[in-house]
Formats: sequence, C-alpha cells, structure tokens
Amino acid sequence: MAADKLHGDLVAALTAIPLIDPHSHIDPYAPTSRTLDDILGYHYYTELAHSAGMSQAPLAADVPPVERVRAILGHIDRFNNTAQYRWLIDILQSFLGWESNHVSAADADALFAKSEAVFGQADWEQQVFEKTNLEKIFLTNEFDDSLEGFDTARYVPCLRTDGLVFQLNLPVIRERLAKRTGIQVGDAATLRAAIRKLFEHFVAHGARACAISLPPSFTPVHIPSAEIDRVLSGFEPNDADAAVRASAVFWTIAECCREFALPFDLMIGVNRRVYRNGVYQGQDLFDSRTSLVQYQELFNAFPDVVFPVSVLSSFQNQELVSHSWIFPNVITSGHWWYSNIPTYIASDLRARLQAVPKTKQIGYYSDAYKLEFVRPKFGMYRSVLAHVLADEFVRPGILSETQAVELGRQLLRENVRQIFKI
Amino acid sequence: MAADKLHGDLVAALTAIPLIDPHSHIDPYAPTSRTLDDILGYHYYTELAHSAGMSQAPLAADVPPVERVRAILGHIDRFNNTAQYRWLIDILQSFLGWESNHVSAADADALFAKSEAVFGQADWEQQVFEKTNLEKIFLTNEFDDSLEGFDTARYVPCLRTDGLVFQLNLPVIRERLAKRTGIQVGDAATLRAAIRKLFEHFVAHGARACAISLPPSFTPVHIPSAEIDRVLSGFEPNDADAAVRASAVFWTIAECCREFALPFDLMIGVNRRVYRNGVYQGQDLFDSRTSLVQYQELFNAFPDVVFPVSVLSSFQNQELVSHSWIFPNVITSGHWWYSNIPTYIASDLRARLQAVPKTKQIGYYSDAYKLEFVRPKFGMYRSVLAHVLADEFVRPGILSETQAVELGRQLLRENVRQIFKI
Amino acid sequence: MAADKLHGDLVAALTAIPLIDPHSHIDPYAPTSRTLDDILGYHYYTELAHSAGMSQAPLAADVPPVERVRAILGHIDRFNNTAQYRWLIDILQSFLGWESNHVSAADADALFAKSEAVFGQADWEQQVFEKTNLEKIFLTNEFDDSLEGFDTARYVPCLRTDGLVFQLNLPVIRERLAKRTGIQVGDAATLRAAIRKLFEHFVAHGARACAISLPPSFTPVHIPSAEIDRVLSGFEPNDADAAVRASAVFWTIAECCREFALPFDLMIGVNRRVYRNGVYQGQDLFDSRTSLVQYQELFNAFPDVVFPVSVLSSFQNQELVSHSWIFPNVITSGHWWYSNIPTYIASDLRARLQAVPKTKQIGYYSDAYKLEFVRPKFGMYRSVLAHVLADEFVRPGILSETQAVELGRQLLRENVRQIFKI
Repeated sequence: MAADKLHGDLVAALTAIPLIDPHSHIDPYAPTSRTLDDILGYHYYTELAHSAGMSQAPLAADVPPVERVRAILGHIDRFNNTAQYRWLIDILQSFLGWESNHVSAADADALFAKSEAVFGQADWEQQVFEKTNLEKIFLTNEFDDSLEGFDTARYVPCLRTDGLVFQLNLPVIRERLAKRTGIQVGDAATLRAAIRKLFEHFVAHGARACAISLPPSFTPVHIPSAEIDRVLSGFEPNDADAAVRASAVFWTIAECCREFALPFDLMIGVNRRVYRNGVYQGQDLFDSRTSLVQYQELFNAFPDVVFPVSVLSSFQNQELVSHSWIFPNVITSGHWWYSNIPTYIASDLRARLQAVPKTKQIGYYSDAYKLEFVRPKFGMYRSVLAHVLADEFVRPGILSETQAVELGRQLLRENVRQIFKI
Repeated sequence: MAADKLHGDLVAALTAIPLIDPHSHIDPYAPTSRTLDDILGYHYYTELAHSAGMSQAPLAADVPPVERVRAILGHIDRFNNTAQYRWLIDILQSFLGWESNHVSAADADALFAKSEAVFGQADWEQQVFEKTNLEKIFLTNEFDDSLEGFDTARYVPCLRTDGLVFQLNLPVIRERLAKRTGIQVGDAATLRAAIRKLFEHFVAHGARACAISLPPSFTPVHIPSAEIDRVLSGFEPNDADAAVRASAVFWTIAECCREFALPFDLMIGVNRRVYRNGVYQGQDLFDSRTSLVQYQELFNAFPDVVFPVSVLSSFQNQELVSHSWIFPNVITSGHWWYSNIPTYIASDLRARLQAVPKTKQIGYYSDAYKLEFVRPKFGMYRSVLAHVLADEFVRPGILSETQAVELGRQLLRENVRQIFKI
Repeated sequence: MAADKLHGDLVAALTAIPLIDPHSHIDPYAPTSRTLDDILGYHYYTELAHSAGMSQAPLAADVPPVERVRAILGHIDRFNNTAQYRWLIDILQSFLGWESNHVSAADADALFAKSEAVFGQADWEQQVFEKTNLEKIFLTNEFDDSLEGFDTARYVPCLRTDGLVFQLNLPVIRERLAKRTGIQVGDAATLRAAIRKLFEHFVAHGARACAISLPPSFTPVHIPSAEIDRVLSGFEPNDADAAVRASAVFWTIAECCREFALPFDLMIGVNRRVYRNGVYQGQDLFDSRTSLVQYQELFNAFPDVVFPVSVLSSFQNQELVSHSWIFPNVITSGHWWYSNIPTYIASDLRARLQAVPKTKQIGYYSDAYKLEFVRPKFGMYRSVLAHVLADEFVRPGILSETQAVELGRQLLRENVRQIFKI
C-alpha cells in the first residue's frame, strides 16, 4: 500500500495550503447555506434528480424546503454513483458529523433538522472558512451589483460581462447600465465611456478580474468605430447586428482590461437553453464544433492582457494546452462544469503538467454558489492532483515528495496570487 | 496481486449475471455459426485482413468456406495485436476447446473441421445460450422482415428504420412499404398511417425498440404537414428534398415511438461508403465535425420518448455524458463500433459512471451477427467494467465489492429490463 | 516493484533495437549541435520560455550564444514541469555527463562551456549515432535542396512539398522550380513534367518518402486538366484559385508517389501563423473543426499509394485509428507536435495497438532539428510503449515479455523498413 500512503501524504500536504478560490458565484450577503435545502438546491443535484426522473414540482418556490430535500433525496439512489454525490457525502461528513459513506431518502428529515441547527450558528461562515482552509474567494458580480457592505479582501469582486456583450439589445440592460454609469450608450464613444466607468468602480472596490462565458459560435474580431456607432444607434427586433455588436462590446471590454490591468477570464463553449424545460441552470450544454482558434485575433491583439481560459470538454482541453503553450497571454484555468469530474480532470491535468509552463496554470476554482461546496470540490481536485503528482513526478523519480507539493502549491495558490495580483 | 484478485472476483460475479443483449444483428432463423467461416466472416475480421493486405478475392461468394478461413487466418499474424483478435481467441477457447492463447495460418484446416463438428450439433444454439449466460437478445429487423417462426421472447424484435428515413426516394423501398402496410405513401397522412401500421405489427409481435443509425450531418427538425405533403408528392432524380423528407419521416417515427411507448435507439455519427471499395460492412467511418446539439429540437419535443444514444467516438462520448446528465430522456447506450475497444470503453465508462445517473446507462450490447460473439464481446466489456469498478469505487472505499457488483448489474441487466420494459 | 522491473526490462530491450528515424529536420551538413545554444534554440524551448515570459530579444541573431543560453535557462524554472524539460535533462545526462535531475539558470555558463568542448569533438556526429543506437534518419528536403555531399544511406532524403502545393502563386517558388527542373510551369502538362523531374531526381538520390504538412481546412479533390490549365495560366494578387491549385498540385504529387512507389507522409492539421508574433516555429496551432473524412477522395483514388498519416490531436487520433483500420493504404505515423507528450502518446498508442493491424503502425519519429534530440524523444516514446506493452499485453497474459518486445520492434523498426523499403 505504498502507493496509497504516498497519495495520502500528498493529499494531506496539499490540503494544508490555504486556498484562494478564483471563481465562484457566492452571494457575499448570504455566503453560506441556511439548511440542507441550499445544498441540495445546487443545480448539480436538481438537474441530476430531474434527469433521473424527478418532476420539477418540488423545485417550486412555495414548496417547503424540507419537502424539497425529501424529494431530491428520494431520487438520490438513482445517481449515487456520481462525483456530485461524493461532494454531498463530503459535506455531510465534514460539516454535519455524518459518519456513513452513503445517504438515502430515509435520512432526509434528520439531516434537514441537523443542517438547520449547524448552519444556523452565528459564526457558521467563519467556521466554514476555517474548515475549508479558505483565505479568499472571488465573486461573480453583475455590472450593477452593490460592492458595499462586505469585506472585499475576503470576497473579491469580479466584473461579469455576459449581459453587456450579448444582451445590450434588451432595453433593461441599457437602462441598468445608464443608471449605474449615468451614460446612455449610443455609439462607440459612449460605450467606451460607460464600460470604463464600470471598470473604475470595480477596481476601486478591489475587483481582481473581469469574466465572461461565451457560446461555441463566438469569434471575436475588432470592429471599426464607425461600425460600432452604427450597431449602437438602434436596435431592431430581429437584431441582425447581434454578432457585430457582441464583438464590439467584447473588444471594448478587453481594451479596458488592458488599461486597468485586469485579467479577462474567458469561459468558452456554453450553449444556453439547449434543454428548454430543464431546471434552473440545468439547461445548458456545449457543442464540439468549436475551436480556440476562433480567439486568435483577440490573443494577438492583446499581448498585455492575461486570459485565464476555461473550456467545457476534454478534447478542447488539448487546444487549450497548446494555445497556452504558445501564447504568453493564455492561461489554463480550472476544470469547468462538464469537465469537472475526476476522469476528465485527471487526463486534462496530466496534459497541462506535461506541456504548459507551471506558472501559467490556475489549478482549480470551485464555481460554488454556497461556501460549503468549496471544500468538497477542491478536495476532489486535490485527490486527482495528488494521483497525477505521484504517478508522473514522484514515482518516476523526477520530483521529491516535497518538490511535488511545491508544484501543487504553484497550481493551487501561487499562480492565483501572481496572476490576479493578490 | 490483491488487485488482480479483486478484478478476477468482480469479473466472476459480473459473469454470473444473465444477459439481456439489447442490440444485435442476429438472424433468428440462423442464429449460430455453421463453421469457422461464419466467425471469420464477421466484418471485423474481413476488414482487418483486407486493411492488412488481403485482397477481396477470398471473400467472393463462390469461394469454399475453408479456403476463406485459410486466407483470413493467413493474414492474422498482421493483426493479432487487436481487441478483435482477442474475441476470436475467446471463441476458440470457449466453444472449440482451443487451449493456446494464439492462432495462426497453420491452424486453419484443423479448426475449420472442429468448428463444423461442434457448431453442427443439434442443440448448438441452446449450448451457446447457456455458455454465454444469455437470456434474451434483441434483433435488428427491416420493416418488412417476418416476425413469425421464432421465439420473440428470446429473440426480441426491433424495428430498424434507416431505409424509411433515408431511402424513401427509392421506388423499391416505397413498394416494400406499400406491400407490407397496404398503404401507398404520398403525403403526411399516408406516411403516418403506414408507419403506425408498422408499429402496430411490430408491437403485436413483441418488439421492444425502434432503432436507426444516423449520419454525422443529420439534424432532425419538425416539418409542417404541408411541407411533408410536398416532399412526398414526387421524387426527383437529384432528390433536392432529401434532408427535409428524412426529417419528416424521422419525426413521424418519433411520434409513433411516443404513441406506442417504444424507446428509440439513436446510433449517431456513421458516414456510409467512405471507403467505396471496402469489404462488405467495412466501408463506413465517422466525422468529428458533428455534435449531439444537432438533436436538441428532438430531445425537447419528445420528453416522453426514451432515446438510448450510441456514439462513435470517445470525444463525442463527453457530449453524450453531458446530454444524458441534463436531458431526462437521453440514455447512454453501449460502446459502439470504433469506440468498442478496451481503452475507449474504459475512459468513456469512467465518465459515465462519474456523471450520469446509474439508472440511465445501458452498459453494453453485442452488435453481433452470430450468437457466438455475444460472449467474447460482453466478456471484454465486463473485464473493463471490473477494472473501473475496482479503481473508482471499491479501492477508494466508496462501495463494497458486493455493492460494486450491484452497480454492474444495473448497467448490464436491470436498466435494460427497465428501459425496454422486459 | 515487479511492475517497475517489467517496465525497466522492456525499456532496456526496446532500447537495444537500432533506430531508423523516419522523419526529422536534420541538416545533413550540420547534423549535430555546436553548443548548448543549438539545443536550447530548439523551438520547444524558445517558445516555452517566451510563453512563460521571456522577451524575444535574446533570440536575435546577433546575441552571443552564451547569452541566449543564460536567458532561456533563466526562465526554465517556469517550465521545468514539462516533458520538453525532461528531454533536456536526458541530453545533459546522456551527452554532457550531467548527474543532477535538474538544471537552473546558475548552470548556464558551465554547461555552455562543457557543451562547446564535447560537441566540438571531431567524431561527435559518430558518437551521437552510437549513443543513440541510430542507424538511419530521414531528412525533410525542399525540392531544390542539394542531395550531394552526404551519405544518403544514413541521411535519407525525403521530398517536402508544402511550398509547391500552397505557395506556387509566389514567383520565387515558381522560379526556384524552373531553375531546378528547367521547366516553366504554366499548365497541367508542365506541372506534371516538373514534378516528375523532382521525383526522378530525389529517387535517384535515395529518397524514400514524399511529405507535406496540411492545414485543417484542406480537402483534396481531383481537378480536371482543363481546370488545372486555367489555374496555372496566371496568378492574381488575391489568388482566388488558391484552393483549386493546391488540390491540383497535391493530386499530381500523389500521382507521382504512385508512379515512383514513394509513400506520401501526410501531416494533417496545422494552422500556420496563428500567433503572429510568436518565436520562429512557435506560431502554429491546430483547429478541432476538421476531419480525416476530408481525405476520403484521396484514399479511394490512390489504393496503391501508402499514406503514413500524422495528426495533431488526441481526438483526431481516434479518426486516424479508424481510418487505418479500414483503409489498406492509411498508416498511423508517430506522435506529432502537440500530441507528442506522454499522456497523449499513451492513450493514442493504446487505441492503435487495440484496433490497427500491427504492420500498419509507424511507432515514432523524432522530428528533430539536431541529432542530439533523437535519443531523448525516442526514449520518452519507448518508456510509454513499455508501459502500454506491460499493462495491455504482458500482465494480462496475452504476450510473453519476449513477444511484447517483438511487437515493439515491429513499431519501432520493422514497419519503417517495410513501408519505406529499406
């Protein structure tokens, strides 16, 4: 069992490294779960339960939380093979004193009551930070989110720009933008002015990144000013200019990333609303017919902007590895969504460690909506990382165990500090 | 060697589970091989021998079977590294008392004689069922195949619809359809009536599935009735309406699957006749430029139809895993053709077990043309499955050995029973 | 440690097999490195150092070699996790008596001086051949390269045809072609005559292959003579006929491969100049939106031409495996560029060994620019090969250790001899 001991030792050493989680959807005003309902309400569970046969009735807002927990746990024996189920067990064991390796429908009421008591403690947020060995965590902020009233050194703001790029044709977006910035966008100059104002505001409040998720068909190109003026001068119902406008706004944001020295997180490849009757956040998928080569103009035009790139599939990971190997400004970033299961993490990570400079790899982010998920998700990653470090570096005699942990520290923490200037 | 013992124990336990094979090309009137010629005549051997240098002369119908066996075994030292060669060795060992781990050209005549004697036994079919631990096996029936004269509880009919969807422009297909149904298809109403008649006939004879194989370019959409009328009113030589008509027929079949509660097996991605001078059934390949997203309209429109989906490549497996994780009606189905080798089965299976509800996975089907292949092909799958169960579930302490076997039983048998209502 | 012993034994046995390296960029007039600068000047190091933050200033021609070595080693702690770094360590250990498993900036001057002394020995070329167990190595020759003044039995000429196919619109290419052949290309007949003349010249000088690298968008088709006449009759600045002309020239080259019985190496999938400010040879990437099916007309039209095919990504490897399994004239060839790291070699090799006739696999080529790289690159491959042979063949009892080494010999040497008629 020497192999297991090495893996265990590496996991222990990696777990001792304080985390800076560079991407999440935490609400800084309600960062932790109130009950098990908030845990099982994570879209991974609602979509797996629904996919396995649960109707959407228990997900309605007026259903009492305990009933929703009963419904989801009532289907969990259909998906207790999954990696997501292991996160749940980890949460139950780490935070609720659960001792079993399994959970079933019969445990719903007792676990709900327990969760209410534990999560309701006054210092629960602090307890989760400590049990997670978490130092900081990045947020995902809409451009008009409030950035006041929370500790931005702990909850690091990040400007999310999907709406600006892809929905500027909606009056509600333009109105919110005008309200936030005092600028009515109608041409290239006002667009730039409004976006600069957002950046000023975010940077003044400690933002460390700009971010966006992008559909597989997106190919950003530079749009001349006159053309930007045209596509911002009016919005037709059919929005024939949508693609040009998206490029125009996207490119302007990249220019601001350069001016304000913010990394631009690109989360590439998601098709929204593919399963139109899916649960909330359980409707999106990807499309293999896409390539990172679509971003070549961007990567060439902005050598001074750092682009941490996330992709959705393991085959696109090879493109990411190759682009990050060649382009100084392309960084591999985490293991996202449909690639965030151990088998894809393992093969994607192996390739990154064999071909991308170690200073250009952001190992992992939690993508969590509630703080309790940071621990199990990073735990899954650290276990895979320990296996890869053991197999590829320690056992072949390339690195000592201590050196391997240092390599892990680089991916888990040092690169995050370096790239996001923390 | 604890690892080997665990693997061996798991294989033994999985082998004890009686099989229901949900997809094959068995001829129920001649289900077993007559001689080794029927074994080596399987397209996997003829195409590998041809690919490795054998001319097609030995494959002519008038060549005596023993000579064809000599020719194929005469090339087998060029491809005795392959998984398909291991199936052959398994067949020789399991059914013909062969003791060596290898076979060569010199063994042709003796093995042929032996096979003639063994396969010629009166109860050979029953012997194969027993040695294979096979309970039922699904057929692939043309719409006008006879469904009489065999035990449909053992040989389960399945309506194959490739010809209807993609070749209705051929007079011979329309004539066969008219002959079978008494309906001359000329518009949307007669199309629906004819297809309904086929479904009634098949369901009355115990059919448990409808199936089709689809080219990488196919994107099914709903076609309005008036448009269906138009594309069925006449057939031009250049068949400019081929794509619309294919969608129309396909969609009508899906509607019948809903009405008759039959799962619709989609075998996605095969390009026919790529190697035009290839051996029979050895001409088809796939094309990476395809996506399951092409099926989003279908999956959204038919929430009540179960779609067991097979794909041809490992990268498309990740799309399948993600679609099956999200869409309640998408089922992962087997390991097909170019992905049916241990290394791709292993990585594809790992991903499925980590991300798809276990109730939504049809582990394997043989795709066999002769019953003797069910055993070696399922044997290959069980060996891979045992490795994955051992590595991912038993050794990390997630499942006991008994629980792991139960998970295997779900994939091998229970889901087939559930999904196809057996 | 039985596993390690088996792996070590297999590596030792494989290392004893003399190499014929079927693809390199060696300059036969300067085959070895003069100093460590030639080692670290390999684009893998310049591009990784640049990607990790090094400016291009040290790469200028007028920078003294030792300073360039200092600059690159000055960044090596940023990419000492990579497979390419392991090649460097192997070179230092094998050729410069280096004993450590690592190298850093502080070692630059001493190593440079040592390299100058060692590489400057009169018999260094011969020493490298011996330490590498290298018998022959293929070159990559421009059509007008001199083929005189070196031993073509050791340095085997290979006609590289990228310029002819994709740059015939450039006057300089047409002039060089006219100068070499005495033929001014202006129609189909002169094109064929000129290319035939090149083939005659190359074959007379011992050439054993024709080769080309191809962009992901390329789809070769047969062009009728009249159309070839048209696209060769004049060259417009915008070159609207580029795609047709490329097919025309490519097809003509394939016809000459058939006539002169030369294999045609296809290196498929490279997009040139994606990173336009990248270092020399560090600007190219691939595009997932491509398929080997684009070559179906070619593979069908030339059954007598052997096509050793290299691909750039692991997902396209599955296409290659399937095409090579089906088409008699398609050969799997090496592990190229972005797929030339252990994790992709391992998965790609497993699939090839399980599905492609063993006589149709060219295991590896070095792609080296200096002879010193043949040893570490083949060493990496042999280590992966030994793992795959151990795991897939020896440990499951399919092959004895001796038989496994024979299988390795087939991939490493025998197929190269057979396919290139050596």
